[in-house]
Parts: sequence; C-alpha cells; structure tokens
Amino acid sequence: MKFEEIGEFKFIEKIKRHILTYRKNNILKGIDDDCSVFKVPGAKKLNVITTDALIENVHFIRDKISPEDLGYKSLAVNLSDISAMGATPLDVYICLCIPKDIDVDFFDRFYQGIRILLNKYNLNLLGGDTSSSKSDLFITITVFGEVDEQNVIYRNGAKPGDDIFVTGNLGDSAGGLEILLNDCSISTKDKNYLINCHNHPKLYITESEFLTKNLHPNAMIDISDGLSSDLLHITSQSKVGAIIFEEKLPISDSLKKLSTKSGTDPLSYVFNGGEDYKLLFTTPKKYSEQTIKYYWQKFKLPLFKIGVITKNKKVISVSQTGDVKKILRKGWDHFKM
Amino acid sequence: MKFEEIGEFKFIEKIKRHILTYRKNNILKGIDDDCSVFKVPGAKKLNVITTDALIENVHFIRDKISPEDLGYKSLAVNLSDISAMGATPLDVYICLCIPKDIDVDFFDRFYQGIRILLNKYNLNLLGGDTSSSKSDLFITITVFGEVDEQNVIYRNGAKPGDDIFVTGNLGDSAGGLEILLNDCSISTKDKNYLINCHNHPKLYITESEFLTKNLHPNAMIDISDGLSSDLLHITSQSKVGAIIFEEKLPISDSLKKLSTKSGTDPLSYVFNGGEDYKLLFTTPKKYSEQTIKYYWQKFKLPLFKIGVITKNKKVISVSQTGDVKKILRKGWDHFKM
Repeated sequence: MKFEEIGEFKFIEKIKRHILTYRKNNILKGIDDDCSVFKVPGAKKLNVITTDALIENVHFIRDKISPEDLGYKSLAVNLSDISAMGATPLDVYICLCIPKDIDVDFFDRFYQGIRILLNKYNLNLLGGDTSSSKSDLFITITVFGEVDEQNVIYRNGAKPGDDIFVTGNLGDSAGGLEILLNDCSISTKDKNYLINCHNHPKLYITESEFLTKNLHPNAMIDISDGLSSDLLHITSQSKVGAIIFEEKLPISDSLKKLSTKSGTDPLSYVFNGGEDYKLLFTTPKKYSEQTIKYYWQKFKLPLFKIGVITKNKKVISVSQTGDVKKILRKGWDHFKM
Repeated sequence: MKFEEIGEFKFIEKIKRHILTYRKNNILKGIDDDCSVFKVPGAKKLNVITTDALIENVHFIRDKISPEDLGYKSLAVNLSDISAMGATPLDVYICLCIPKDIDVDFFDRFYQGIRILLNKYNLNLLGGDTSSSKSDLFITITVFGEVDEQNVIYRNGAKPGDDIFVTGNLGDSAGGLEILLNDCSISTKDKNYLINCHNHPKLYITESEFLTKNLHPNAMIDISDGLSSDLLHITSQSKVGAIIFEEKLPISDSLKKLSTKSGTDPLSYVFNGGEDYKLLFTTPKKYSEQTIKYYWQKFKLPLFKIGVITKNKKVISVSQTGDVKKILRKGWDHFKM
C-alpha cells in the first residue's frame, strides 16, 4: 500500500509498533504529544524536545512566502509545540537541504526571519546540518526546552466539566492559504491580514508560560492540524468527549468576508484548516472566569471559551440554531442525536 | 550566488554570523563540533545533541540500498557523531518526508534497520515528524545523549606531539559507492565487503566510551567527510599541524583490488571518500602504546597509528619514498617543502 493511500495518521499508527523506550524511568512522554518530555538525572526541571519539517510544495510554495517569513515560520511551528507543553524554548538546531539553484542571499534573508524569534525569546542557535537537495527545499528544526515539573501540560489531562479555550481567531491561516493559491476579490487589507496569519503566525510562548504557572490548565495542544483534529487528540487521549459551541468560535471579519466571496462555510476553515498555531486548552470551570481576567490584565488579549469537556466520549459541535454535528478528524459530519 | 557555486563549507561560514548564543553559561560547544554540548542546571553529566539529514539522490539512491540498511545507516551516522564526543546516545527522533508513491512496507523494513541499533544500544525512540514529499525521500534524525564532564572530547584539543589514530580501514565506503554507481570487475566477495562498508557502517560507540573513560584522547572526530576534511577540522580548530604517514594508513585488500581495476590511487578513496565513520583521534605519545594494548585486550580490534600532531600549522602526508604532499580539504596536492 502506498503512503498516499494510507495517509499520515494511519501511517503513524502503523509505525508506532516500532517505538521503543528501553529506559522508561526518565521518560514522562514519548510519542503522542507536542514534545517528548524527559528528566535528566539531577536536573531541577523537566526537558522537552520537538522536531518538525517544512517541505517545499507541501508546507510552502517558495514564491508565495518571503524568505524572512519562511525562516520565521519554520522556527515558529516548532516553538509553538514547546509552548503547548507549557515549556520554555532554549536551544535551536536547523537542518537545511538546499536545491542547487537557490540563491545564497535567500538564506541571509531566511536567517533574518529566524533571528526575530531568537532575539525575542533569547534562544541559542547551536547548529544543525546543511546539505544539497536534488529537488525541493527541506527545512527540519529541532528545539530543546525546559519546564517545571508541576507546570508541564499534556494532551491527556482534560476532565469532564472543564471549559475549553482558544487563544485567538481560528481559520485565518487557511483563509490566507486560499488567497495565496486562488486569490479572491476581497480588499487588500483583508487579504494582507489573512496572508500574514498564514505566513507569520503569532506565537503564545510567554502567554503559555503565564497560564501554566498561574492557572495550570488540565490539557493543552497547539492548533496545527485544525480545530477538529487537534481537539480530537485531546479528547481521545483524555478519554473524554467535548461540545463546541459554534457561535463562540472566534472568527475574524476578514475570514467572514472571504467566506462570503468564496462561498465556503467559515467553519470549514476553522475546523479543517490548520496552521493557526493558537493554543487550545481546558481548565476547570471554577477557574475559568479568573483565567480570562488575569490573562487580559497581563496581556491585553482575549481568551475565547468555545466549549466544554464531557464525560461521554462524543465530540460534537452545536450551532446557534441547535443543530448538532459530530466532529471528525479533518472534517465534521452531520450527526443525528 | 547559487548554493552549488559557493559549496557547503563556504555556505556554513557565511551563515555562521547568524549563530547566536544568548545564554552562554550552560553552553560548552555550539557549532564547530560533531554535537552541541550543554549543561542542564543541576544535572550530573553534560548532554549532547546532534542532527543529520540523509537525502535521496544526494546521500543514497533508493534502489542501491535495502530499506533495512537505509534505516540502519540513517541512525548510524547520527550515533557516530555522538561517539565522536565520547558520549553515550540516549534518545532518538526521526523525521520522515515521504514521496507519495513509496510503499508503506518500505518503512516496516526501514524501522527494522533502525531497531537493530535501538536494541544494541538501549536507545529510546521518542518521536519525530512524518510528512509527505513532492519529490525525494528525506530522513532527518536527531539524537540526544550524555557524557561525563571529564570525558567529553572536542575537535580542538589536539596537542603537538600527540599520535594520531584511526579505529579501522579507510576508503572502503567510497569504494563501495563506486561499485554501486559504476560496478567494477572484482570478485563478488570483495564487492560485497565494500558495498557493506558503504551501506552498513560499523559504529564505535562502546569503543569510544572505553577510550574516553580509560585513555582520554585530546581530540576526536568521526570520519564522515573523508580523512583530509576531518583531519583539517581537528588541526584548524586545535591550531596545530599534522603529518600523516601514508604507509601506515589501514587499507583493505578489497579496496586495493578495486583500485588496481579502476586505476584510481587507493589514497584518493582514503583522503577524499568519506562516510567511513571510523573515529579519528589524537592522544599523547606516552599513552599511545597502552592505548593500543588496552583497546586490543578489550575489543580484539586494532587501532592504527597513522601520524603525529605538529606545532607548525602545516598538514601534510608523507609517502614511503619520502614524497610530501599538502593535505587539502577534500583533496591533497603535491607540495614542495
């Protein structure tokens, strides 16, 4: 069977049986979360590692993103995984496989994008690997970080009754991608906003550190594959269900305008789009109001309460008119209750 | 200027100015060695990280290597970098970018090759990333390891008067590659030996741990780019010179037979071939004899003393007849003394 027939998620299930952990003692989390989490003997904190690839013509098209934004985004997607554990990024390793015809100046600009984040979060860039490629540009980044043992947040800690939050608008990145690929007759301002959401996502590293230290959520993930897919990671690993209130989902005016023009339901971007890099987390209902309040006081940014965790294992969305849909991985179908 | 015009080494020099280390306190080595070396606060040992990519049609041709050997080799080249620091590998992360037409069974076999090394060295496989690729197969592996602070070995510690050692035959991997690409009329036994050296290199992890704990070499590197290139890493970073005695270089009979048939000087394979993954290290002359003896007693393997470190910065090779050549990166030219 070919990789394209089986798809990424089934492929991962298939190769999971090869996963081995010989020295289990120091390993708190291997596969099945945004980062691995482990304890170095004697260390005061836990450490985390994540690695992610960005591939030309799969994750980006070279003439649709500036080299600066490509550098920024390549590192950002990895830092987002670190923030989803409540952790602090420390050291960065960059592996580049470079087509021979690419201009060296491209990488001066690429590293300028990288440096924006190195500077902002005081990160060490400690090396990597550089090679030629016969075809596309491949970028693999590895990030090493740390987190206090009492603050680490996994995907599997959601409890029935928890409120579900996201840290910002959903679907904008998918909207930006659609404009890059197909264009669409909306205003330049709306286009630029959506494209910027796709090429230069905001990170929530400081915000995540604050949340975990002060208001310890029960479960957290970053939305890289779309709300449906990432919510299902939390619910399946926490062995719970969820109800999402569609009217509570934060959707930008720009995305609404794009949806009207393209005739696509904005919720399709929200649930299936991916690459938003907002944090999705759950926290006990009794802490919800103070979570919103303290977060606003600190960052002047809103948190969006979009649903609740339930005891039964159904993962559903409810529309303003009371229609109920089952949320499926990378899609959601009408579901008769 | 294009990447192919500037080449990998000049490219690395060019992007080095983007390297940043904000938190220098805990970093013992960033770029410029086989691994980064850093201290996790409170930890009893130092930790190391390395990351390396294997790229289809650059580092391997898919129908010239079995999936098992490709898995083995992809991890082996990373573990070799860990051994070159005197360190012990612990955790492995595998990033795969997979062409859509590739068969899923390929990866069952690929992971069987990976598991040989996971089993042998008790390594944890803790995750990575999986994506599709529009073109070639890309494999990036990251390895995390540890080393006692008193045992870590850098490239920059070689001292004038040190003897220079390698842990096995050189040039065999390049010979194997030549057979894979061009074939050559030597015996099947010789062919198989050389191809196996290329596709399934022996590692020296346990041997490196023994050497560093018992006989602490001054400088060490693994030979991935060829003796000339890797020796020059040691001499330039240690600010010393070196004399290599060509007659002392360990060359297999199979490579000699290939050289005769192909009309290529065997030293060309040795100096410029690369991918041998033998350890190249220097140790004070007074310890040289016991190093050879203890190593033999422990592993029943020979060590090859191939030269000496000198105070002047010339890096040369001397033939049996007294001809002197300057060793250049990826090549060596005749040099008039």
